[in-house]
Formats: sequence, C-alpha cells, structure tokens
Amino acid sequence: MENPLFHELKKHLSEIKSIEAVMMLLVWDQQVYLPNGGAVARSRQLAVQAQLAHEKLTAPIIGKLLDDLQSYQINLPYDSDEAGLLRVTRRLYEKAVKVPPAFKARLSAHLSKSYQVWTLARPANDFAAVQPYLEKTLSLSREYAHFFPDYALIADPLIDFKDTGMTVAAIRPFFAELRRQLVPMIKDIREQPLPDNSCLYRTFPTAAQLSFVREVIKNIGFDFERGRQDLSPHPFESLISIGDVRMTTRVQENDLSQTFLDTLHEMGHALYDQGLYPDFEGTPLADSASASVTESQARLWENVIGRSRYFWNYYYPKLQAIFQEQLNSTSLETFYRAINKVQPSLIRIDADEMSYDLHVILRFDFELQLLEGTLAVRDLPEAYRERFKADFGITPPDNRDGVLQDVHWFDGVIGGQFQSYTIGNILSVQFYEAALREHPEILDEIAHGEFSALHNWLKEHIYRHGRKYTTMELIQRVTGKSLTIEPYIRYLRTKYGELYNL
Amino acid sequence: MENPLFHELKKHLSEIKSIEAVMMLLVWDQQVYLPNGGAVARSRQLAVQAQLAHEKLTAPIIGKLLDDLQSYQINLPYDSDEAGLLRVTRRLYEKAVKVPPAFKARLSAHLSKSYQVWTLARPANDFAAVQPYLEKTLSLSREYAHFFPDYALIADPLIDFKDTGMTVAAIRPFFAELRRQLVPMIKDIREQPLPDNSCLYRTFPTAAQLSFVREVIKNIGFDFERGRQDLSPHPFESLISIGDVRMTTRVQENDLSQTFLDTLHEMGHALYDQGLYPDFEGTPLADSASASVTESQARLWENVIGRSRYFWNYYYPKLQAIFQEQLNSTSLETFYRAINKVQPSLIRIDADEMSYDLHVILRFDFELQLLEGTLAVRDLPEAYRERFKADFGITPPDNRDGVLQDVHWFDGVIGGQFQSYTIGNILSVQFYEAALREHPEILDEIAHGEFSALHNWLKEHIYRHGRKYTTMELIQRVTGKSLTIEPYIRYLRTKYGELYNL
Repeated sequence: MENPLFHELKKHLSEIKSIEAVMMLLVWDQQVYLPNGGAVARSRQLAVQAQLAHEKLTAPIIGKLLDDLQSYQINLPYDSDEAGLLRVTRRLYEKAVKVPPAFKARLSAHLSKSYQVWTLARPANDFAAVQPYLEKTLSLSREYAHFFPDYALIADPLIDFKDTGMTVAAIRPFFAELRRQLVPMIKDIREQPLPDNSCLYRTFPTAAQLSFVREVIKNIGFDFERGRQDLSPHPFESLISIGDVRMTTRVQENDLSQTFLDTLHEMGHALYDQGLYPDFEGTPLADSASASVTESQARLWENVIGRSRYFWNYYYPKLQAIFQEQLNSTSLETFYRAINKVQPSLIRIDADEMSYDLHVILRFDFELQLLEGTLAVRDLPEAYRERFKADFGITPPDNRDGVLQDVHWFDGVIGGQFQSYTIGNILSVQFYEAALREHPEILDEIAHGEFSALHNWLKEHIYRHGRKYTTMELIQRVTGKSLTIEPYIRYLRTKYGELYNL
Repeated sequence: MENPLFHELKKHLSEIKSIEAVMMLLVWDQQVYLPNGGAVARSRQLAVQAQLAHEKLTAPIIGKLLDDLQSYQINLPYDSDEAGLLRVTRRLYEKAVKVPPAFKARLSAHLSKSYQVWTLARPANDFAAVQPYLEKTLSLSREYAHFFPDYALIADPLIDFKDTGMTVAAIRPFFAELRRQLVPMIKDIREQPLPDNSCLYRTFPTAAQLSFVREVIKNIGFDFERGRQDLSPHPFESLISIGDVRMTTRVQENDLSQTFLDTLHEMGHALYDQGLYPDFEGTPLADSASASVTESQARLWENVIGRSRYFWNYYYPKLQAIFQEQLNSTSLETFYRAINKVQPSLIRIDADEMSYDLHVILRFDFELQLLEGTLAVRDLPEAYRERFKADFGITPPDNRDGVLQDVHWFDGVIGGQFQSYTIGNILSVQFYEAALREHPEILDEIAHGEFSALHNWLKEHIYRHGRKYTTMELIQRVTGKSLTIEPYIRYLRTKYGELYNL
C-alpha cells in the first residue's frame, strides 16, 4: 500500500509529465510535419502548455506534499525509486519556484529578439548587431544565477541546470588537461598528409541511405514498435513517452558519413529513452540522468562504435553491396580512414572526433570569463580569434564562422551551454571501458553485427535508472570510480596514434 | 479600443482554444503516426488536456465575464463578430457547466467498456453481449438530456450538441418526406439491371492514386502551405489551427472511387476550415457552424461535384492518362455510371448516394423511439431487420452487418448521432443551388477544371463565418430561405432519373 501522500504527489507529477510530453510532441511536430501556416498558433500552443506545466509544478500543494513527505523520505533506502523520485522532484520544484515568473518572461522575451537579430547578423557577419543583445543576455544570465546564491562560481547554477551537481571546480581541471593533450596531437596530425576521404562524398541516393541506416538501428536495438524515425532538417530525438521515442534523420545525398553518424547519434539518445524503467512513466524519473549522460550515449554510438573498425568490419561489405558503383573500388581501410579523418576546421558541429572537444572547451572557458567579468562582450570576437589560432593553428577569417556560429548564446543564457558535449565524450569511453571489462566479448560481437551484450549492459547500468541518480552518482555506480578523462585520452591516443603514427 | 472585459474574456478563450488545438493534434498523431508503444500514455495525455480545457471553460471567471458583458452585448449589432463570440461562448459555457463532472466521468467510463465489448461483439455477431451496455447507455443518454430540461422531446438536447437550434420537430418532417420519396425510387432502381462498375475495381497503384488526388485537391484549392495530407486507416480531417488543417486519406488499390471520393469528402471539411476568418483564431468562432454544415461541405465535393458529369468531363481524360492500361477501354459514360451505381446494401458507410439517407433516417428514428421508450433495446435487432426490409427490400442476415455495424451508440450516447449526415446532404444541394443562382458559370468552370467561382462563393457565404451563426441562421443568410429538402430531392430525381429512366 503506497503512502497516500506519496500517491497524491505522483498524481500531480503524472499530470505535469503528461503536459511536458505534449510539449515534446508539439515541438516534434513543429520540426517534422507542421505546415508553415501553423507556426504562429503553434508558438501559442507551446506557450500555453509551458505556462500550465510551470503552474502545476510550482503550485503550493507540491511544496506542501514534499515537506509532509520528509519523514517518509528519511526512512527510504537512498537507492529506492521512491527516494529518487522525491529527490528529483524536490530539485525541480526548488529550481522552478526560485525563479520569478516575471524574470522568466523578461528573459524569454529578450531571447526571442536576440535570436531574431542573430539569424540576420550571422549571415551578415555582423557582430556589432548582436553585441548589445549579448551584453543584455550576459547580464540576465548573471541575474538568473543569482536566484541560486549558494554557488562557488557564478557559472555553477547555470551548469547545474543541465548537469545537477556539476560545477566549474569539478570540470575545469579535466578540460584543461584534455586541451593540454589535444592541442599538440592535433598539431602533429596537421603536419601529416590528409587521408583521402572523397569516397564519402559521392552521390548516395536518399532512399538507399535511409534503408541502410534503418536496418542498422533496427539491428542494434531501436524498437520501431515503441518509436519512430522521420526526416527533419536538423536531426533530433524526442522522448514523448517511454513507449513513444522519436528520432529524426537528415539525409545528405553527397555526404554518406553525415547521415550515418547523425543517425547513430540520435539513436544513442533514443535507445536510452526506450530503455527507461517502464514504471517511471508519468514521473520526472522518466528522463535521462543529465545532458552529459544522454550525450555520452549518443557519442558512444556515433563515435566509439560508429567510427570503429569492429563495426565496419561487419557493415562495410553490406554498405558496399548497397552502393556497389560508389564504393566497390574503396577498401575497408580507406573507408575507415576517411570516416576518421582529422582536419581542424572552423565549425564546431562539423568537427572531427579529435578536434571537437577543443571547440567545446574554448566556449566553456569564454562562458566563465564572460560571467566572471574578466572578458567583455565587445572583446569576444578578438579573444575568439586568438584562442582559436592557439588551439587549432587556424585564424577564423570572420565572425560568421567564428564566434557567431552557434545559436546557444543567442537563444539561451551564457553559462552551462557547452560542457555537456565534452563530458559526454569523456563519459562515453569511461562507460564503454566499464562495459568491456565486464563483457570483453562485446568487441567480437560488434565485429559480427551483434550488439546485445553492449545494449543489455547499457540498459541495466545506465538506461533503466533514468534520472534517479545524478551524473556523478551514476558514474560512481557504473564504473566504481569518479569522473576521469584517462580512458578517453587513452582511447584517442590509441586510435589516432595508430591512424597517424603519433 | 476593445472593451477590457471582452479583451479579458478573449484571453481566456484563446487559452482554451489552444488546449483544444493540442487535443486535435494528439488525436491526429494517434491516428497517423503514433507507435503502438505510445498508446497508453497518449490516452493519459488526452485525458489531462480534456480536463484542463473543461476546468478553464467552466471556471467561474468565464461566467462572471459573460454576465458582466451583458450590457455591452446588448448594444452590439447581432451580426458583429463580438456579438457572435459572446453568443457562442455563452452557449458552450452553459452546456459545460450544466453537466456535473462526476456524470461525465461515469459516462466516459461506461462508454470505454461499452466500446471494448462492442469491438468483440460485432465480429462475433453477438447482440446479447452488448445489450446490457446499450441499455445502460440509453439510461445515461436520458440522464444527460435531463441536465437540459427545457426540451420538447428528450432527443432535442442531444441533437443540439451537434446542431445548435435543431430539434426533432424541425427535422422529422423532412426526414419522413425524404424517406417517402426515396423508398419507391430505390425500389424502381432495384428492378433494373445493374450498371457494370467493374472498371473501378481493377488494380490502381497507391502512388499513382495519391498523386492524382493530390493534384485534384490542390487544383480545387486545398492549401498545402496551411495544411497537410497524410495516410491513415480511417480518413478524417482535423482543424488544429486555421493555418494548420490536416486531412487524411486511405488508399485502396482495388477501389478507385473509394480513395477518390473519401479524399474529396475530407477536403470539403478542410476547405471549410482553411477558409475560416483568420481573426477568429483563438476563439470558439474558429470552427464550423455545426456538424450538419461541415458535413454539407464534405458531401458537396464528394457527391454533388465529385460524382458529376461536369467534374469528370475534365478529369476523366487525366485519370485515363494515369491509368492507361486500366481505363483506356472504359468510356467516360461507363465510368460516370459506375461511380453513380445505386445498389442498396447492408452497410451505411458503403452506401451509394441514393440509399445513404435511408440508413441515416432509420437510425434517427430508432434513436427517438429508444429515448421515448417506445422501443426496448432488446427489441432493436428485430425492429432493425423489419425496417431495413421495408426501406431497402433486403433483410440483413445478421446483427453484425445490421444493428451492430456502427460504432456511434457504443462509444457515444444514443441520440443526436446520425441526423447531421442527412441534413448535410440536404444542405449540400440547397447551398449549391444558391451558389449556382448567383454564379451560373460555376458548372462551365467545373467542366474545365476551374473551381474558383464556387470556392470563392463558399468562402464568402459559408466558410468565413465559422461558428458565428447557427445552422438555421446560416441557411437563412445564405439561401434566403429556411431549411428545405426540395432542392435535394430535385437533384436526386434529375440525376438518377436520367441515369435510370425513372
């Protein structure tokens, strides 16, 4: 017999979750099927649902139930689902009630304008146009952080929104060390001849690409009875309910690896969501642990598996069979080197596996400097150019493909926007090593197109726990250690050392 | 400067409309794209939104605003949008507050079970299984009607839900007269040899059928920038917002006319919704006038236009060009006679244009008798068989394809469920005659694949008014007369008289 107060709390949470699910569907539909004429009404629909969800979550009854349940909570084992649910709910409730609705409205109105200005300023290479908006965003970001005053550094509460428990102090040393290692490796690689990756840029008809990736994700374990795959201009994944997980794919006829790797990335998110413990449905536990952990699952499949020799050992002959004309004269080794070509370039989202993190760390560092006041917004373009030159050996020729390239600071706050990408990379390998320790047969399975040992391990150790544990708690549980970059650096050194004779 | 109370009321209404739009999308998605695994969560999402919409509509503030706005309303011209909005809102509010939530919950729980039982009972031809459920439904239907006690006949409030202002007294004489005319006509037709309609049942590949109907609806005026067409097992149309109107199509490879006529039917609903006055967005005026009026728009395109010689004069050569092998030896006249073949049969939804209304009138009459207590549920199967024999000259061999065929009484109340289909047919011709009086060139245009005169007339006289006028008010405005069946009977007599030498 469930505690009646707990039961009542769950009723409220289920209603909130249901409204959030509706918002996910509204956004999914907006990206995938909404006709142009429906755009204005759709914004309104989203705003109304967001308002309803916020009202329900911040209703006094939630706070009262949480308070009244404290004595119940104390006696629950920490690992119990009930205790997890109460911890997470308390966290969400506190975060929601601490930010005054008037501030959120002000922030959201400002960011709408800022985003509009950015969409014009970026193609026009016009940093001056966004500068006042970015300055306002910075000041609003600080104001936002101040609603959570018990921080060590002002970026901490903003990071905490994406990764509960993560702080600058916990992240910065890892990022600094990673950068220290990556910069010379990339310099070494730049001094070598570029591998020929032209095999990826022939013409690969959409339908054939789609049928190939569909076959792959089905074989790996994406459940089409409990999810969908659709096309959209920007690939994304969406958890509508545990039995309704939707991923989208963008097919580029002249870029084979893009379609493929994007799809594996979204599938990584989707496998996670499909693997949530079904009883979590209708509670805030029915979600990924954090932005970093879900990113780790996406990057695991995209990079660690999807760019590996093991994987292509099985799949490359199948790919060749589909694209005979395009790939018959390309060996597995050439293909493997093509999809792992390292070539530092200007754009983060197009970066190779090796240089990607340098883009992220650079942005993370600038967020801290901006928030701490050690860098002024007006000096950002110059600082960006200098840092980029130092890290990549290239000077960005303009702001368009420099500091203006990412939407994050223009439709969101400054702070907490980027670190999850690199923590996700670090974790992808830390988790994978743990899986391999327990199941060394995983590598051999993958080389034969089998994924169940790995998939089952992920389900059991990561997916099923949903949001019950924080990122740090989960890392400890899964790997027996705290966050560490050693496995990730070892992985990069081994893989790219072999490829580039480092 | 808008009256501030009116402005406030509109804010509330916009929120309600937005929630209703979300419900439309949830249902659309459920029918079109929802993976199986999402079904349970989807029901929950719908229930939560329905609850929210109900709470918002029945909130005391709505009643207070309506009361406070009475002096404002009195001074508004009857035809003004403001007056229309206040009338419609008052109506919706009264209907919503008069039904206790506990009763609605009871009804809805009962109908869920009743529907489940019916899904098994129909294929098993087992009326006994549904009888107790139907008896309970009948008693709940009466209870429902009693919340609106100022009726002449108990069916009136139930009819009023679908067609404000319509009553048994207003409808029954027309239905009786229509039946009196149809029964002997159908008898005459049954004594003649059947036209050969085998040309419709060859194999017509899905993609080609789809591309044909898509071309047709685009040419008629369906705006793909403000709507979509998708596939679904049961065709339907859905107004999500005035700029986001979605219709679905079911393609049957071995039934050319089914795909085509279904599509024109849904397109008729969709043109109506796309033609609503854009300023009505976010208000309850952004809807069709009634179930009958939107049905009239569907039937106009499906039957009056879509089964006409004028229409096929232009489109049949195009159809032949697409399906050369299948149709080259079939003349326009043979095709025209095929799509207008009259052959009374057991199933309402498969009925031809001539016998369709007899199915409807029969059900309407039974609803009245059941509600009035002059027919017991247990006697319904026998009564159905007798009446069917009298009207169609055929005795249904079983209940499955007799009284059990329609879902309406098993997932909804008894009363008000069917009349709109036949009023829609009657109105389709009454409206069309009015359009032709004003624009005799319509016929010639249609014969040349032009639809703008008719479409513009419909926009101006019907679509744009949305729900501002009741069915009866709209008929009067559009045709200068009250509801009359003469045009419809004249139309049927002329068309089928010529086809069957009556």
